[in-house]
Amino acid sequence: MSWIEDPAFGPDHPFGPQTLPYGVTPDGVAVRVGDRALPLRPLAGSFGRLADLVSAPDLDPLLRAGRPAWSELRARLVDLVTAPTAPRGAALTDLGGEILPFTVADYVDFYSSRHHAENVGRIFRPDGDPLLPNWTHLPVGYHGRAGTVVVSGTPVVRPRGQRRAEGGPVFEPSARLDVEAEVGFVCGGPPESRLTPDRAADHVLGVVLVNDWSARDVQAWEYQPLGPFLAKSFATSASAWITPLEAFSAARVAPPALPNPVLPHLAEERPWGLDLTLEVEWNGEVVSRPPFREMSWTFAQQLAHLSSNGAPVRPGDLIASGTVSGPGVDERGSFLELTWNGRDPVVVAGAERSFLEDGDTVRITATAPGPDGSVVGLAEVVGAVLAAAPVQGR
Amino acid sequence: MSWIEDPAFGPDHPFGPQTLPYGVTPDGVAVRVGDRALPLRPLAGSFGRLADLVSAPDLDPLLRAGRPAWSELRARLVDLVTAPTAPRGAALTDLGGEILPFTVADYVDFYSSRHHAENVGRIFRPDGDPLLPNWTHLPVGYHGRAGTVVVSGTPVVRPRGQRRAEGGPVFEPSARLDVEAEVGFVCGGPPESRLTPDRAADHVLGVVLVNDWSARDVQAWEYQPLGPFLAKSFATSASAWITPLEAFSAARVAPPALPNPVLPHLAEERPWGLDLTLEVEWNGEVVSRPPFREMSWTFAQQLAHLSSNGAPVRPGDLIASGTVSGPGVDERGSFLELTWNGRDPVVVAGAERSFLEDGDTVRITATAPGPDGSVVGLAEVVGAVLAAAPVQGR
Repeated sequence: MSWIEDPAFGPDHPFGPQTLPYGVTPDGVAVRVGDRALPLRPLAGSFGRLADLVSAPDLDPLLRAGRPAWSELRARLVDLVTAPTAPRGAALTDLGGEILPFTVADYVDFYSSRHHAENVGRIFRPDGDPLLPNWTHLPVGYHGRAGTVVVSGTPVVRPRGQRRAEGGPVFEPSARLDVEAEVGFVCGGPPESRLTPDRAADHVLGVVLVNDWSARDVQAWEYQPLGPFLAKSFATSASAWITPLEAFSAARVAPPALPNPVLPHLAEERPWGLDLTLEVEWNGEVVSRPPFREMSWTFAQQLAHLSSNGAPVRPGDLIASGTVSGPGVDERGSFLELTWNGRDPVVVAGAERSFLEDGDTVRITATAPGPDGSVVGLAEVVGAVLAAAPVQGR
Repeated sequence: MSWIEDPAFGPDHPFGPQTLPYGVTPDGVAVRVGDRALPLRPLAGSFGRLADLVSAPDLDPLLRAGRPAWSELRARLVDLVTAPTAPRGAALTDLGGEILPFTVADYVDFYSSRHHAENVGRIFRPDGDPLLPNWTHLPVGYHGRAGTVVVSGTPVVRPRGQRRAEGGPVFEPSARLDVEAEVGFVCGGPPESRLTPDRAADHVLGVVLVNDWSARDVQAWEYQPLGPFLAKSFATSASAWITPLEAFSAARVAPPALPNPVLPHLAEERPWGLDLTLEVEWNGEVVSRPPFREMSWTFAQQLAHLSSNGAPVRPGDLIASGTVSGPGVDERGSFLELTWNGRDPVVVAGAERSFLEDGDTVRITATAPGPDGSVVGLAEVVGAVLAAAPVQGR
């Protein structure tokens, strides 16, 4: 019987003692217990050599510390929150979550759902093979903008951008604003390159949800030949709370097989697929339940690939999975796919909808099987769409 | 008559009093005078409200300070280095330059040489239009890896990577390692989005040279549909010294006209083309002199484009121009173009060469016309190629 009396802090709740995500409140580093936050600075004295890490204003020092410190902190926190009596100085607070809990170093976005890649291929290249030849041999990805990763809850201003039009391109508010429901991995530990997939988990503190907002009309015009740029770089939302990798011990699964063997440097001895089920709410209605177990490439393979050319994985690197889409129509992680580029609108609150309108809110949540039949939660990523800002210089 | 007696510190030398680039030495922030460095911390007392900025270990505080502080510092430095007597505490040191003088926030690489884009198009898409339709309407670019921007002089380990081969892709050391001679713009000031081109210069402290090392075989296999990734992210070299934008007042030119009008948010009242001439040395032999005045899109237009979707330009953002290539064969800024993908090898030290071999060194320098007939220099970016590292996990 824990001293924490929040009703959401039980093993039946996704943020019970099996989960314990890290975040920050105005008091600095905190752990989430149910729907409350436990700031750790007042308890620093009981964390031994970890005192500095838990007394910090954000998670950056913890990210730099690496796996041995992460494992020790996790064990201490499990003891602390499940003790029958409160430690001296413990005080629960509101969740907060108004600030991103770490500094993003490099942001990399992968493209590791075969269903997503095939859907996009069918929509945009109807006459070609839906999957490009490299896709089954390496986790395709690209660098995004670290400076516009924002915390869940931050409003998203509809971007202006160039798009094709009759008579030449125009610069207008995007008319095809979309979401991408993704899972993100927050990296740390000593910078290291040429990771094997089996070493990758030592460089991942934990997991967040990511909404990689996308302006499809801007993307279609700009992306050749160097890839997506302004269609993505206006905002990428991430959960305020990072669920530690340890919480997913019961969720580990093998990913779907690829049609070809992978090269040795990408082969996993024990695969890091994860059985997460996402839920996408559009203005409060669930429109999709993307299954993360369907992803063909794991974060461990993504980190092995990313670092295979000598690039070190740094503390604060954020690695997103790519849009999570399953085989079912109601398992697609973007509205582009869900509405088949607008051909098959979905009904939201009685109205037919294809892309995002000003005032819309999208909320993504996820759960995974936890130990002993419990459920492990990933903190929501939510955002509301605001009308476009005035043109520059006016 | 200046108190600085370095023979390279005269108006006839590219690092004379008309140039004054910023960098760091082991003593912190410094200004380059000829081939010597003048650390500023011992002189901080004479910099008034700028004392903290010049006493810092690196240029990050200066980058955050923005244009008013930059202009004041420039004026004070010109007075200081041209005074007839040395200020108390002044002591010249070796150039140093072993560390990158600032923290890279986001790294963006553009593609703004029409000759380069057309050459690449002709090489890789011989049957199509060499220029894609978006190119003349916006400065095409993408995000690169901030974490692997390294200072000039850092050896470059040949990357391994996946490339096409008979029987399926292989993971091998790149066999087509190349350079890209570019010009980089180091950004600062308060984060600001939706910049007009005419406001952009207030967000650029100064200019560096960039070598965007590229593994062409890796790039050809990986880049569809999300753009270059591991073919570029192993290393990007930048000058150790940042030449302030003020030094280029006599080098400002209009860029070549585009075949169509640009949209209003990208239109410049007074264009920011720059008449820089680069020089690429391969193992000590000059193989190319790329003319930067041939670039179709200016840094001001690049920053206006980059921030047009609401993304703020942050202190530490590094904006590279893209490969600088002119119309002449000996004006091409990559070996891919210079040797026409290996078809037309160049002779270096008596041997026919197409791409980089282990042990090769590439050095890029540049000059611009300065005031009153002087010459303004950009600090070199140099790197030697080392053999590939062992495969991961071995």
